[in-house]
Amino acid sequence: MGARLKHYGWGREGEGMTEAEQAFVLGRYQAKFGCDSFERVGVAALDDIKLREPRIVPPKSLSEICAVDVYHRAAHAYGKSYPDYVRGMLGDYDAAPDVVAYPRDEAEIAAVMDWAGGAGAALTPFGGGSSVCGGVECRVDGSRYKAAVTLDLRHLGKVLEVDATSRAALIQGGAFGPALEAQLKSRNVTLRHFPQSFEYSTLGGWIATRSGGHFASLYTHIDDLVESLRVVTPRGVVETRRLPGSGAGPSPDRMFIGSEGILGVISAAWMRLQSRPMFRAGASVRFPTFFAAAHAVRAVAQAGLYPSNCRILDPQEAYNTGAADGSVAIMVLAFESGDHPVEPWMARALECCADHGGTKEEADASSAHLEGAAGLWRNAFIRMPYAREFLTPAGLINDTFETSITWERFESFHDGIKAATEQAIVDATGIKGEVTCRFTHVYPDGPAPYFSFHALGRHGALLEQWQAIKDAASDALIAAGGTITHHHAVGRDHRKWYDRQRPELFAAALRAAKREFDPHAMLNPGVLIDP
Amino acid sequence: MGARLKHYGWGREGEGMTEAEQAFVLGRYQAKFGCDSFERVGVAALDDIKLREPRIVPPKSLSEICAVDVYHRAAHAYGKSYPDYVRGMLGDYDAAPDVVAYPRDEAEIAAVMDWAGGAGAALTPFGGGSSVCGGVECRVDGSRYKAAVTLDLRHLGKVLEVDATSRAALIQGGAFGPALEAQLKSRNVTLRHFPQSFEYSTLGGWIATRSGGHFASLYTHIDDLVESLRVVTPRGVVETRRLPGSGAGPSPDRMFIGSEGILGVISAAWMRLQSRPMFRAGASVRFPTFFAAAHAVRAVAQAGLYPSNCRILDPQEAYNTGAADGSVAIMVLAFESGDHPVEPWMARALECCADHGGTKEEADASSAHLEGAAGLWRNAFIRMPYAREFLTPAGLINDTFETSITWERFESFHDGIKAATEQAIVDATGIKGEVTCRFTHVYPDGPAPYFSFHALGRHGALLEQWQAIKDAASDALIAAGGTITHHHAVGRDHRKWYDRQRPELFAAALRAAKREFDPHAMLNPGVLIDP
Ligand SMILES: Cc1cc2nc3c(=O)[nH]c(=O)nc-3n(C[C@H](O)[C@H](O)[C@H](O)COP(=O)(O)OP(=O)(O)OC[C@H]3O[C@@H](n4cnc5c(N)ncnc54)[C@H](O)[C@@H]3O)c2cc1C
Ligand SMILES: Cc1cc2nc3c(=O)[nH]c(=O)nc-3n(C[C@H](O)[C@H](O)[C@H](O)COP(=O)(O)OP(=O)(O)OC[C@H]3O[C@@H](n4cnc5c(N)ncnc54)[C@H](O)[C@@H]3O)c2cc1C
Repeated sequence: MGARLKHYGWGREGEGMTEAEQAFVLGRYQAKFGCDSFERVGVAALDDIKLREPRIVPPKSLSEICAVDVYHRAAHAYGKSYPDYVRGMLGDYDAAPDVVAYPRDEAEIAAVMDWAGGAGAALTPFGGGSSVCGGVECRVDGSRYKAAVTLDLRHLGKVLEVDATSRAALIQGGAFGPALEAQLKSRNVTLRHFPQSFEYSTLGGWIATRSGGHFASLYTHIDDLVESLRVVTPRGVVETRRLPGSGAGPSPDRMFIGSEGILGVISAAWMRLQSRPMFRAGASVRFPTFFAAAHAVRAVAQAGLYPSNCRILDPQEAYNTGAADGSVAIMVLAFESGDHPVEPWMARALECCADHGGTKEEADASSAHLEGAAGLWRNAFIRMPYAREFLTPAGLINDTFETSITWERFESFHDGIKAATEQAIVDATGIKGEVTCRFTHVYPDGPAPYFSFHALGRHGALLEQWQAIKDAASDALIAAGGTITHHHAVGRDHRKWYDRQRPELFAAALRAAKREFDPHAMLNPGVLIDP
Repeated sequence: MGARLKHYGWGREGEGMTEAEQAFVLGRYQAKFGCDSFERVGVAALDDIKLREPRIVPPKSLSEICAVDVYHRAAHAYGKSYPDYVRGMLGDYDAAPDVVAYPRDEAEIAAVMDWAGGAGAALTPFGGGSSVCGGVECRVDGSRYKAAVTLDLRHLGKVLEVDATSRAALIQGGAFGPALEAQLKSRNVTLRHFPQSFEYSTLGGWIATRSGGHFASLYTHIDDLVESLRVVTPRGVVETRRLPGSGAGPSPDRMFIGSEGILGVISAAWMRLQSRPMFRAGASVRFPTFFAAAHAVRAVAQAGLYPSNCRILDPQEAYNTGAADGSVAIMVLAFESGDHPVEPWMARALECCADHGGTKEEADASSAHLEGAAGLWRNAFIRMPYAREFLTPAGLINDTFETSITWERFESFHDGIKAATEQAIVDATGIKGEVTCRFTHVYPDGPAPYFSFHALGRHGALLEQWQAIKDAASDALIAAGGTITHHHAVGRDHRKWYDRQRPELFAAALRAAKREFDPHAMLNPGVLIDP
């Protein structure tokens, strides 16, 4: 495994962007904001972090699996959102839990729950901690909740059983992406759920947040890959039946999928697997405009071809990632199969593209997914998570938000949100910024647009500046009919807009359901609902 | 529209099996049980039906939309299950509602709810009344609930809006299959949800029961076709956002999909549509055994080809429907697309079949879905609903049950259930019967087996005989890990087994959720849960 996970930043200690990557990214920002350098501040070192005395002490029976030292508490204070990075940089670790518990099995999860519940503490399930919406940050002040305990699931990391006949596996909730795939590989199967955070996020976290993964169409969210669940709740274990499909009442699985840890801890799941892809076809397609590319995406999505990749980048986004020169939009198109050659599918999809002005980049078809614009973009995609710890200390505000919308409203939706966000950047920072868009997932009835924004902030005001931009963007997308999140989850930070989006009576029902699983509301207070 | 709906039997007055169809079906049963004729009893005529005095009277403001005469009440007493037909035949209409209300809009639904709730009545949402599990039969004795009111949604039958760009339509909950498709046809789109009960069932009923339709793979249930919902609950209207995909908390739609009328009345839904298929390929494939055919189905399902049809019939089932001579199993295989020729898909699927000993029947490819074994079976499938009202008075017990199971357990599961059901038939009737199996839907991780059984019952004992067989079959499939229903719903009749299948804590959560929507538990008492 190597080094331990960073308490601040992405991945393990010692990992980060190469100098070349740093220079590339900085160069783009220098050009964008017309300046030669950025004021860079230091990041609070572990030794400088002061934490409050733990408000709670684990009993002897649990001391072996509990940690209270600064490293463990600081490393569990935050997720990976922009404001998390700012506060970490500034050494503000008020949100650190009092105790971090590392259970090794369901019995220990239950024991931690019993203890923390009895002590009046709030309990935060923690997978990879890659939440970008305040999902793992326990905000308790010691009154309603006496303390904060984080339950880190990393020791539940095994593939327990593979059923090759049904192409399914029983996997523990704390399994990280790479470890999970490594265990499946020997059986020649794969989950193929590859969120950008794949390396440092977990199966339980993916299911709890309805994570969006590799497949741009069809199996977009993890939801459809869940065959059954085991969930440890304060009232006991819930286990659903392994069934390929069922119509027996509202789906119990669907109540837990997306429940973001407020109903229980997902300890294991039977997951539907894929055969390892043996056949691939990939292409990069250029379009004169983003909307022309979007028309092609709609055609492909409604054709029933189910590409594994059908992402489009607007010209500026393509330029930023090095995939194009800024004058064209790019579609990254791919088909894959463990069973049959996919050329007929690709050929038809390319026809749809041509119908809307798309031109295929010339490249060797079999490896196109690793070359050309698509390849460049893919590489940038994988390395991107390391950028934030480098950019935040330079006063650069770089964040993303994502949503979905039906096709008939897409163009005005896109323009409205882009304009509102651009305006908010100017208002908040006084300097013109940049807002770009891509599609991460596509459906027959609409796309999932994913926006990135770039602003030059001011040290000392970064949090407020970011919040103002975030508010404007979120207000705009909720007013225009979108969802506050297509796959990043709600957590605590999206609550204001989620509360406007979900039906009020549904929230009441969810609160009522929670009371059955978690009568003392110890799990993730403030996430999704106020208990 | 023509004649009014029958109070007993399938469809409209005057409809039924032709004499030739009757002779064909009877011939099969005569051969099966080795006898020349069956004792035939009469069916209670409408004029002979005695109903209790209504225990409740609608207020003047609602009298225009309420009916209390024998026809309306008798026609809403039952669904279409075997025991429903027996009781109707015998003139036992104890379960008839006191009042049938026919609201014309949401305001009238709410008004009926307010009145019935205030009067202490139970309220039963009623679509087509094609439930086969006691879903529309209100069993109240006048104590906890003072009376029974049925809410028939037939007047909410319109397609309100078509969004051709996003390929979606807003459709009212009471729309029957043919009327709904007729309204979509002019816009060149289609829902393509074709349960066997298509002609006399409704969109709201399909969503409430997680109905299984046309597509044998991928969009098997109506669930995935729902974009958003409007639900009238006793506490007010719930409306979810139109979104192509979302990850914002547990899906509100999924709480109502499959809720079988216990949480509210689905008054309208935005549904995802299909382009009208322009390209089709169909084939019938013969296999030496049912399990060989099942192996081929598994290969096709795991290949990611997504056939619209991939149903297999065991040799006896193929014989009974006239599709084959009883020596071979049959696969009915089809691909369809509104966008592109589907030959490459079909070619690969036929290779999967050949790998498992399948031989394609020779027929003109473009029309094979209407000819040969597949065509015969298809015709029998469409006419089947009319058989029950003809067979029940002859003392023949003919019923079906359906489930799903992962592939690795399928063979022993199949054999165990078939044996248990066959034994139960002998035990209950003293005469050897028949149990056959087909697949209605298939998934990468398992099939949805659908069993039919045939027994020669005895007048006067039909209900008990049927129940004994049903109990044995259901016990067997729940013990072996299946679901008590893949798409027929739970209703009241499947409760005993559903209660063993679903997690206890989930039922508690569902009860708690129901209290938020329906605080006085007026909606469908006894369906899915005891309030
Ligand atoms: C650089 C970067 C890229 C990202 N890319 C993507 C992407 O491509 N697609 C995407 O969907 N998301 C993405 N995300 C967001 C994040 O990775 C996902 O939300 C992910 O699913 C979180 O998994 P995790 O294991 O890190 O969960 P955590 O962050 O640890 O937890 C997330 C939430 O789930 C709860 N939780 C965690 N584990 C469990 C469990 N076992 N049982 C119950 N509740 C639990 C937590 O309490 C918390 O509320 C990205 C984030 C970053 C920082
Ligand atoms: C011959 C035959 C063939 C069948 N074939 C199939 C098949 O292929 N696939 C399949 O899935 N099923 C099938 N079924 C079962 C039945 O048709 C389905 O369950 C269907 O979805 C019921 O629709 P309906 O409109 O008739 O609902 P109903 O029977 O009227 O009601 C079913 C349940 O849903 C509730 N309900 C009805 N409308 C609403 C509403 N608007 N809002 C809230 N609750 C409501 C009712 O209270 C009841 O509990 C078949 C039944 C028969 C008799």
